[in-house]
Amino acid sequence: MSNQLNGATRLYPIIGDPVRYTESPVRLTLTFGDRGHAGVCIPMQVPEGDLAVVMAALTATVNVDGILVTMPHKFTAFAHCATSSQRARLLGAVSVIRRNQDGSWHGDMLDGLAFVKAQRDHGARVAGARALLVGAGGAGSAIAIALLAAGVSQLVVHDADASRVAALLDLLAGPGGGRVIAGPPDPGGCELVFNATPMGMAAGDPLPVDPALLTSSMFVGDVIAGHGVTPFIGAAKAAGCKTADGGDMVEAVQDLMAGFMLDGPSGLGKSTGTGARLG
Amino acid sequence: MSNQLNGATRLYPIIGDPVRYTESPVRLTLTFGDRGHAGVCIPMQVPEGDLAVVMAALTATVNVDGILVTMPHKFTAFAHCATSSQRARLLGAVSVIRRNQDGSWHGDMLDGLAFVKAQRDHGARVAGARALLVGAGGAGSAIAIALLAAGVSQLVVHDADASRVAALLDLLAGPGGGRVIAGPPDPGGCELVFNATPMGMAAGDPLPVDPALLTSSMFVGDVIAGHGVTPFIGAAKAAGCKTADGGDMVEAVQDLMAGFMLDGPSGLGKSTGTGARLG
Repeated sequence: MSNQLNGATRLYPIIGDPVRYTESPVRLTLTFGDRGHAGVCIPMQVPEGDLAVVMAALTATVNVDGILVTMPHKFTAFAHCATSSQRARLLGAVSVIRRNQDGSWHGDMLDGLAFVKAQRDHGARVAGARALLVGAGGAGSAIAIALLAAGVSQLVVHDADASRVAALLDLLAGPGGGRVIAGPPDPGGCELVFNATPMGMAAGDPLPVDPALLTSSMFVGDVIAGHGVTPFIGAAKAAGCKTADGGDMVEAVQDLMAGFMLDGPSGLGKSTGTGARLG
Repeated sequence: MSNQLNGATRLYPIIGDPVRYTESPVRLTLTFGDRGHAGVCIPMQVPEGDLAVVMAALTATVNVDGILVTMPHKFTAFAHCATSSQRARLLGAVSVIRRNQDGSWHGDMLDGLAFVKAQRDHGARVAGARALLVGAGGAGSAIAIALLAAGVSQLVVHDADASRVAALLDLLAGPGGGRVIAGPPDPGGCELVFNATPMGMAAGDPLPVDPALLTSSMFVGDVIAGHGVTPFIGAAKAAGCKTADGGDMVEAVQDLMAGFMLDGPSGLGKSTGTGARLG
């Protein structure tokens, strides 16, 4: 890492509040080093109301090539992007930003892709599968888009807040091609069972899906990271399911971020392609 | 260095244009590590007109504890400091900035101190000495202030631009206490002979002082860094003089910068004192 930080370093700040628990300064910087790129990811703790002034400064700073965006800025940062991916426009949110040739910003949303990559990396077969997704908020919406792009045959969405489900079904009416339906949190008939709610972050949280309904043929994924094996993942393992957890998603997103930064149209061209497109 | 960069890292950007040749990202980051501080110095290439927007962003970013300032921002950055040292106010310029308790900025100018420290570190006796200083621009002015604070008995200032000499004598009328005079670039009777002009950066530059006038009892210092042994320092060595060059000044400033950032009133209190005050 030490030979990446000098006067000629290219900067990739991660902006959020808080940022102290983010692993990207370590992981993405190491990934850049593995790829021979003198880039460094640095944390910038930016309060919610201060995004605009920070974006103006990062735009003006010549050696800032990209920006990672985390909460609470994922939606507001979208407005600072001159161009963006279709999936980012659908959500009105970005998780990564890189320079266009003219110095303006291009945004993308990799959270859903990273979730799907983590499932595949742990043995899930996504194309053609029927999936239950519990949680239709920001994370769930990004995952839903990525699951459709990855070719699920049907996506059953549940959320305790029915208005969120309705909004997500409305959002996906076009790209979903009739594959998205609302339903109860019942995994019967699903090969994939996913939690995209915060349930599992606090002790005593209810489980997103009744564990008695899990069978060993199901692949179970969870977005919760940094809390060890959640009760939901624990129940899935006990039922004989293959699983992927939020930590696996954090791992998967690093490669996607490095690819987005280095391989895009404005990147350094070390390889091609950043992942799936919305089908 | 790798254990200093993570989500909880404290940031110390160096802002300038260009910044690619600055050694502070490496040196100051290593010094922070030696002192057990999880701080990282990162380069930010900020064009001349963009200082205000970058300062606003760095002010808003919670984990920015200090800023290093290099050209072309040393004078304009002064205006962003709510408080500053007496030497910074005299020059209207800053080279380092740290947080006050209320989040505002405190500025100081360490360039002159670093120059004097480099001379002392290489054997110069400054207190009570008579010094010739060639060059009355920004660097020369900072050095003049530091030499007076360090107790020179007389300071002879020369510059090809007589108006610069007049301006510096005017500036130093109070703090100089009658010790500062204008004169020719003749080191006769001086124990210290210093170049603070750009002469020596380009091949074929004239020498700031006629080398035939140098004698082995003189200590000769030069601000030019990054150009190897300059013809002036080469001539001084040939005359048997002890010397310190711009590289020694770059080395000396790192300790001063780390001390300013960590030991000041708003710093981490790991030791006390940041160096000399203007006498």
